[in-house]
Amino acid sequence: MKKHFLSFCTCLFLSLLAGNVMAQDVTEPSVPHANDPAWNKTSKNLQAAWGDTNLQTDKFICPISSKLSKHLILTAWRGERLHAKFLVWSGEEEGNLRFEVEEQEGCRWTDEQTTGFVRYVMTDELNKNGGGCGYRPDKTLFDSALVADRIEPMRTLRYEARTVRPAWITFDVPRDAVSGIYKGRIRVECEGKECGVLPFTIRVIDRTMALPEECKFHLDLWQNPFAVARVANVPLWSREHFEAMRPLMQRLARAGQRGITASITHKPWNGQTYDYFENMITEIKKADGTWMYDFTVFDRWVEFMQQCGVGPYIYCYSVIPWKLSFRYYDQATNSIVDKKMNVNKPEFDDYWVNKLSAFATHLKAKGWFGHTIIAMDERPKESMEAALRVIRKADPNYKISLAGNYHAELEGELFDLCIAYDTQYPDGVVDARRQQGKITTFYTCCTESWPNTFTFSQPVEASAYGPIAAERGLDGYLRWAYNSWVESPEVDTRFHTWAAGDTYIVYPDNQSSVRFEKMVEGIQMFEKIQVLKQNPRYAKSIEKLLKPFAYKKINAATLGEDIKRLNAFLNK
Amino acid sequence: MKKHFLSFCTCLFLSLLAGNVMAQDVTEPSVPHANDPAWNKTSKNLQAAWGDTNLQTDKFICPISSKLSKHLILTAWRGERLHAKFLVWSGEEEGNLRFEVEEQEGCRWTDEQTTGFVRYVMTDELNKNGGGCGYRPDKTLFDSALVADRIEPMRTLRYEARTVRPAWITFDVPRDAVSGIYKGRIRVECEGKECGVLPFTIRVIDRTMALPEECKFHLDLWQNPFAVARVANVPLWSREHFEAMRPLMQRLARAGQRGITASITHKPWNGQTYDYFENMITEIKKADGTWMYDFTVFDRWVEFMQQCGVGPYIYCYSVIPWKLSFRYYDQATNSIVDKKMNVNKPEFDDYWVNKLSAFATHLKAKGWFGHTIIAMDERPKESMEAALRVIRKADPNYKISLAGNYHAELEGELFDLCIAYDTQYPDGVVDARRQQGKITTFYTCCTESWPNTFTFSQPVEASAYGPIAAERGLDGYLRWAYNSWVESPEVDTRFHTWAAGDTYIVYPDNQSSVRFEKMVEGIQMFEKIQVLKQNPRYAKSIEKLLKPFAYKKINAATLGEDIKRLNAFLNK
Repeated sequence: MKKHFLSFCTCLFLSLLAGNVMAQDVTEPSVPHANDPAWNKTSKNLQAAWGDTNLQTDKFICPISSKLSKHLILTAWRGERLHAKFLVWSGEEEGNLRFEVEEQEGCRWTDEQTTGFVRYVMTDELNKNGGGCGYRPDKTLFDSALVADRIEPMRTLRYEARTVRPAWITFDVPRDAVSGIYKGRIRVECEGKECGVLPFTIRVIDRTMALPEECKFHLDLWQNPFAVARVANVPLWSREHFEAMRPLMQRLARAGQRGITASITHKPWNGQTYDYFENMITEIKKADGTWMYDFTVFDRWVEFMQQCGVGPYIYCYSVIPWKLSFRYYDQATNSIVDKKMNVNKPEFDDYWVNKLSAFATHLKAKGWFGHTIIAMDERPKESMEAALRVIRKADPNYKISLAGNYHAELEGELFDLCIAYDTQYPDGVVDARRQQGKITTFYTCCTESWPNTFTFSQPVEASAYGPIAAERGLDGYLRWAYNSWVESPEVDTRFHTWAAGDTYIVYPDNQSSVRFEKMVEGIQMFEKIQVLKQNPRYAKSIEKLLKPFAYKKINAATLGEDIKRLNAFLNK
Repeated sequence: MKKHFLSFCTCLFLSLLAGNVMAQDVTEPSVPHANDPAWNKTSKNLQAAWGDTNLQTDKFICPISSKLSKHLILTAWRGERLHAKFLVWSGEEEGNLRFEVEEQEGCRWTDEQTTGFVRYVMTDELNKNGGGCGYRPDKTLFDSALVADRIEPMRTLRYEARTVRPAWITFDVPRDAVSGIYKGRIRVECEGKECGVLPFTIRVIDRTMALPEECKFHLDLWQNPFAVARVANVPLWSREHFEAMRPLMQRLARAGQRGITASITHKPWNGQTYDYFENMITEIKKADGTWMYDFTVFDRWVEFMQQCGVGPYIYCYSVIPWKLSFRYYDQATNSIVDKKMNVNKPEFDDYWVNKLSAFATHLKAKGWFGHTIIAMDERPKESMEAALRVIRKADPNYKISLAGNYHAELEGELFDLCIAYDTQYPDGVVDARRQQGKITTFYTCCTESWPNTFTFSQPVEASAYGPIAAERGLDGYLRWAYNSWVESPEVDTRFHTWAAGDTYIVYPDNQSSVRFEKMVEGIQMFEKIQVLKQNPRYAKSIEKLLKPFAYKKINAATLGEDIKRLNAFLNK
């Protein structure tokens, strides 16, 4: 990855001076870069070849044609989602690029919304001492670079000589496809003239992915509806807002999302994202001192997400918002009040028991109580104990979750427990929990240098989560941000906190990312493992093939090969 | 009135330097003043005498003993409220002053809460070109002075030599008093030693004031509950708030108040008072676009005021708040929204018809609809027309009021019409309105130089409103501010807008004022006139005695005498 010390704005300014901004495209940043001498030796004409979806594409490094395949062969289960990437480049020729996917007659497997040119976005890098946590108000203190991550569902693009332009193809193999060989090709044109033909073969084997409702992977990427409203510039919870969210959330549902992220306090995470989370429960302190609640926003959100296919769980954040400040509408003063409450004061209990009791009544009336989870992040112990106390007082049957550290004394209380990638459950805990019907998963966030889904992470890292969960015997994976978009999410993935891309893995206007699609690949591997390991003949082999994914064993140098080897077995 | 150009703060500073601040009393301001040479000629010892309630008392001008009475004779109807003022002064003696009211045996007519020393407060003056309107951010641009206005129900006070200290006595003659002569006296002590005895005689004649419910005067002084909460430092609409308001509003009820002032928008008058008026209707725009209303605050306020004896009318301000900005709680964003609405846009009609329809339904359920009045101030014509349009659309039977100019084309729509003191109703309009059961009154505000109830106005001016209303054949009088207190209402009646005292006529902690009690005297005259003029034998005389109060005839030089003459007849 080419790195430089100039901020994005400076780069844009320099590139404007240099006149190398593409006239028709202001959505993709331009950065200064060193000249790769290999461009002088490559063909002047446009070329195309299949690339490796596991790896990033460098915009300015001339691909080595001989190392790239012209013919792609993919293997699939029925119902599987497949990804392919091809690259286009030239030493001199440039102009309007266009491609077509020509599928075998009768097949329409291409997911149009996830097929198109891959766009370069700005990213940064890990902290000098590893990890991606902490504040980054000064972008110049971190290397920045372009990465091809945003999959824009467009088939035409202005191509600039001596750059590499990737394109992404997604096939959804139907569940009722006949097993066998399917052939097709990609046709690439520049200025109306064919400049490349890339054949592909899809071998569909005689296995079928589990039905969505039978899938085992517990995916929990937290959704941010507030970011969608801002970026789409539509009123919160309006029809337009829901329409803007629909494809985005349907995409998440298809990936296996099991949790609806609901906020039941103002700024549960202290507004750490560009668009903070607002309370979905309307709380009114009446002039007579009683509380009035209205669940309209919560209901609309949950019902919408259910329509999108997300569920069944509703995770409600949080009894212990980070600032322990509670915002409500105060009728007497016709104003919004922010009230800090100490978890050891009776007012904390009064506030929550009253609210959670009313909430429980509402959830039961809706038939949602059984799959609503009052969710916590890791907070100081006395806060978590206070949360458990008020939840239990309000309704002893509330389900509770924690994403944080492992606390033996809390474990029994938690229906859903999720600990960090780099920590381990004590022996026997996960199995015991599964027998009790409880959910046990792991998460990554800014802490993990690798594997992760920062925009500068290698795409294959996202695919590792499925096998890792399988190796650990866990139910799935959690990440705290599906779409907490930054200011200009389509152009610059950097934020004033954390490594770039930490806060979102999909883009506005229902644009997917290389990272997200690679994560889906890993989830599919997990599901295949669940199916095959039922068969004792395969269980042993799978166990062996998962060994490289074990805690502290997993290795960046071999991850691609380890996944390839596992996949080869799963697709036998 | 002694005037000077120093601001209050400067004065306080100077007086601190001079060491002439009373040690036990920080609530009364001290100002620099010229020395009245008459102090050298007056007795060194404390003296007391009855003063004229019609006139102000100057703190630093030595009274002329020979012009003051030692024996006061008052005439009353049964059920009448009587006022008296006595003065205490000395050339040298000073110390702790105390007085007692010794009533005739068996009588307990003293209103303890309106009997006590009169306290000096800071005031200013009219604009140089007359009237009291406009901004006064720089207090040094106006003369300031002390006026004895605040009646503090205390009987002991530190007296400082060469000042005049008034005290106020209020008697409520029982409705069942036997007509005849009642005698009593005031005993004044300084440092435990008697320094004055002031006898008084109350002659109760064989007439009885109308029962409160039969009184005819329509008094409408707008109440500001928000100011009470701030000054009493209690939460809005809390039990403590209502308790703080109770004596204040009971006092207003006893004076004949007919209207409960309710605010149905945020800042109906653009927050022009120190404590702005908040909306008493809770308006929530739900996430689904519908409106939810809650009338808890409105109901509590109205019910409280009814308990205090104020009513029957509920004046609701205002469909056309001055800024045409409407504040509501927006559920979707959990925030307070201020939305400007053009009166000619459909959203204005949607907003109001929806709200006023729900309000009408609520009022009917409460049994209040028939005496609820949607109230307007004078606004641009298109706004007033828009208001009428939406009120009529919401419910054609809503009563409507206007305090403003006379508009012939609107007159028929208005149940209550109130025009400025200096304007006139066309001939026949008032009588015609009365026959239709409608209310027709006049108001004063900052505009009128005289008569008015600024703190620097002569007390007798307040007494003129009753006779003026009687002379004009009107139903009563309106003033826009009963208790819109300023920052330190007990000490300094000046405000950053308008002449001092414009915004309130009573003081915190249920302290009345000379102005307010004198206004009550005028209202009692009005009521007596209503009773007596039923008798044709008196009607002619009354008509004649009211002539000096006629439009453009009323005269500051003779007002005191005109009132005295009228009173003499009414008390015959």
